Amino acid sequence: MFRLVKVTENALLPALKYTRGMSVATHKEPEKPSIKTAVPGPKTQQLMGELNNLQQAQSVQLFGDYDKCVGNYFVDADGNEFLDAFTQISSVPIGYNHPALLGAFEDKHALKSLINRPALGVFPSADWPSKLKSVLLPVAPRGLDHVSTMMCGSCSNENAYKAVFFWYRTKQRGGKVDFAPEDTDSCMVNQPPGSPDLAIMSFEGSFHGRTFGALTTTRSKPIHKIDCPAFDWPVAPFPRYKYPLHENEAYNNQEDKRCLEQIARIIEERKRSAKPVAGIVVEPIQSEGGDHEASPAFFQNLQQICKRTGVALIVDEVQTGCGPTGKMWAHEHFDLPSPPDLVTFSKKMLTGGYYTSAEFRPAQAYRIFNTWMGDPGKLILLEQVLRVIQQENLLSNVQKTGKVLKNGLNELEKEFSNTINSVRGRGTFLAFNAPTTSLRDKINNDLKKNGVLGGSCGQTAIRLRPALTFREKHAHIYLDTLRKTLKEL
Amino acid sequence: MFRLVKVTENALLPALKYTRGMSVATHKEPEKPSIKTAVPGPKTQQLMGELNNLQQAQSVQLFGDYDKCVGNYFVDADGNEFLDAFTQISSVPIGYNHPALLGAFEDKHALKSLINRPALGVFPSADWPSKLKSVLLPVAPRGLDHVSTMMCGSCSNENAYKAVFFWYRTKQRGGKVDFAPEDTDSCMVNQPPGSPDLAIMSFEGSFHGRTFGALTTTRSKPIHKIDCPAFDWPVAPFPRYKYPLHENEAYNNQEDKRCLEQIARIIEERKRSAKPVAGIVVEPIQSEGGDHEASPAFFQNLQQICKRTGVALIVDEVQTGCGPTGKMWAHEHFDLPSPPDLVTFSKKMLTGGYYTSAEFRPAQAYRIFNTWMGDPGKLILLEQVLRVIQQENLLSNVQKTGKVLKNGLNELEKEFSNTINSVRGRGTFLAFNAPTTSLRDKINNDLKKNGVLGGSCGQTAIRLRPALTFREKHAHIYLDTLRKTLKEL
Repeated sequence: MFRLVKVTENALLPALKYTRGMSVATHKEPEKPSIKTAVPGPKTQQLMGELNNLQQAQSVQLFGDYDKCVGNYFVDADGNEFLDAFTQISSVPIGYNHPALLGAFEDKHALKSLINRPALGVFPSADWPSKLKSVLLPVAPRGLDHVSTMMCGSCSNENAYKAVFFWYRTKQRGGKVDFAPEDTDSCMVNQPPGSPDLAIMSFEGSFHGRTFGALTTTRSKPIHKIDCPAFDWPVAPFPRYKYPLHENEAYNNQEDKRCLEQIARIIEERKRSAKPVAGIVVEPIQSEGGDHEASPAFFQNLQQICKRTGVALIVDEVQTGCGPTGKMWAHEHFDLPSPPDLVTFSKKMLTGGYYTSAEFRPAQAYRIFNTWMGDPGKLILLEQVLRVIQQENLLSNVQKTGKVLKNGLNELEKEFSNTINSVRGRGTFLAFNAPTTSLRDKINNDLKKNGVLGGSCGQTAIRLRPALTFREKHAHIYLDTLRKTLKEL
Repeated sequence: MFRLVKVTENALLPALKYTRGMSVATHKEPEKPSIKTAVPGPKTQQLMGELNNLQQAQSVQLFGDYDKCVGNYFVDADGNEFLDAFTQISSVPIGYNHPALLGAFEDKHALKSLINRPALGVFPSADWPSKLKSVLLPVAPRGLDHVSTMMCGSCSNENAYKAVFFWYRTKQRGGKVDFAPEDTDSCMVNQPPGSPDLAIMSFEGSFHGRTFGALTTTRSKPIHKIDCPAFDWPVAPFPRYKYPLHENEAYNNQEDKRCLEQIARIIEERKRSAKPVAGIVVEPIQSEGGDHEASPAFFQNLQQICKRTGVALIVDEVQTGCGPTGKMWAHEHFDLPSPPDLVTFSKKMLTGGYYTSAEFRPAQAYRIFNTWMGDPGKLILLEQVLRVIQQENLLSNVQKTGKVLKNGLNELEKEFSNTINSVRGRGTFLAFNAPTTSLRDKINNDLKKNGVLGGSCGQTAIRLRPALTFREKHAHIYLDTLRKTLKEL
């Protein structure tokens, strides 16, 4: 299936413009998936045993042969070639072994930035301010001109929460920057007022990460949370829509209303109980929790409640950010009258971090701080990713491919109305439900055996998370394979 | 100062054996520091302004020119060449631009492992189990044969804490693996028993990171903790020794006893109050908090208390691990009768993670889990680092250099007994105190102006954190510069 191709200007892949004089030998995508063994195959099963001796590894599905993965195709250790509609839990922006990424460290300056990893909060490189300006600011959500880099999604959210608590406490101090002795003393023994009884509110079904602060706001599944101490922070309902949307407008509007009322009520209650909500964290589309979406009106009203009650609005774009909904940031779909207060990112952005405004900038140094504060090597790769997104017009591609995929899924849910329903989402960030968890798991597993990798989320959902380079031809392969899978159930 | 040198087998740097056919042009270390401008220089000051427009950046000291940094020398944006005894908050193991690291991604398989970053918990590469076995297991603390990779020190500690809570709750369930409905239900609203009132105890002056779980156990300075909600977890005293050690044995033994009694008392009290301590986290040498050490006897007794009371012992080797004390892991100095339960690492290890045994392996998948679970690119660099440590016998070098440094510091504290005292530490992981914070800051700042980068920690300490490649000649430059600095105060 793979042919080694010496890339020239006539070749299909637009490789040369991404490389700096490198002689790139790359290979083409397969025409279609190709499964040669049982899934998982014998080599994979043997490796699972090996890894499981070193750690709890029962979450592993397949072992990858990353030398052979290409574009939208994942190749496993047994030589099976899968069309990848899950892309490492939605974290591969432009496919495997993209020439732009293979060439990114040809440049010696880039290589040295990678291997001499600085403590960015103390000794950043001379080009770090201009890197932030040229790579991260051009794609910043409108109205947000501050950015801090981090390592992963959890860490990005944890630091956004901290920025919110600092902001809230500064307001409570009437803007006073200095700390009172009762604050500095009590925080050292983890007691108020220095360690205040403030909360970040999140939503039923949300996922914001797995470190203790992030995990407190995660509300997806017990297996994520059980046995871990958690802060006494509140949870609000998030709309649960009926599909198709246009046939359920009244019900869904009522859902928005129900949730918004609860949100406002909890904020008021907490204020009275002296455990106020300082911030709300929300995903534009709840991802791990089951791909639950909410209307632009819901988000506009949510922002209005936040503004009215003095609560910060954190939009967690770790999974939705960097293009998969057809816009750079999913919250751009909501036409918010003003920017969110903080927007966190990771996954397809390759570096973690958050955007915000000067309002949420701590007055003192060393408050948003850790040893590495991100990783310049990831910004070098992100720079290439963003260039490819622009040069190949990938946001348009996502919109176009997404339309084909969603139309196809809509047809399939009519054809197989007993087995799949509730097709939803934006761009290629799509999902549908099965009637039960076990049937969902069987569909996903059979899809894999038929050569397509998809993800599951929530209790009954199958989610699509392809790379931004997923084209119409890939959409058709996905849909054909899903039809075949559903027929054979 | 820099000469471009085409590396040959006769050249000083042992470059060729680390590279795979690469034509390495590298440069030699300067003979000594060279300061050409004010510190910070004009270029640095301009860049500070630029960065500070994008984020709170007042913690930044210097901007680096990482193309020119070499070995133990840090070169800043103004062309000043500093001997680096701080190395990016102790995170650079073998100096800047080491040929072994420059060559690490020449190999195409390594490059593809770097740019095709997998979700290691779901789709690791086929060579991942053997990488863990060949890179991380050979340097595992004796007796620990499980390892999980993470992204940074905070995340490593947070996940170690989770593993401890899982273990503790499983014991409470009498080993039963299944969860009761009251556990799965209550954890979704952050309430016990599903979100249990369990604690990790830490020590006054400790630092374990800045995400909310790690931050609760951090007890170094108010600026790290203030305004952040924290769990109601207890703190115990950590010995505060008098120096020189051999003149203060009785006092210091009493310190050990005082602290151990409190530790045992807190564990008993917490058990009675139904908020039991599940684990204790401890640094072999408290680093950020002021380089406080404790005796092997203290650690042996601490472990004994943990064993007797059913509390897990987590040794946080984020800053002490990977050689700077002259052993791979600092806790090897303590001759513990059995291994610690968990050992966390990051910084010089380049990847985060923790070692443990099968006892702390969760029965279920997806409990110690996140999207990336570390980064194969970091393991590729670590592989080179560990090879260099072995080939260049760097642990011996640390012991030898450390002796020169400590002897020199001991002489200086006699010569300047009004300005520095309490020289302490192991290997090159050394520190001394000034009488006041302001004098400490002045010494550190003057050292920098004289061409030496050092770190501060705690209220009055200056810490040395050179790379493992810091040789006797560097030690002499450090000591000479410190003498000059102290004379000029």
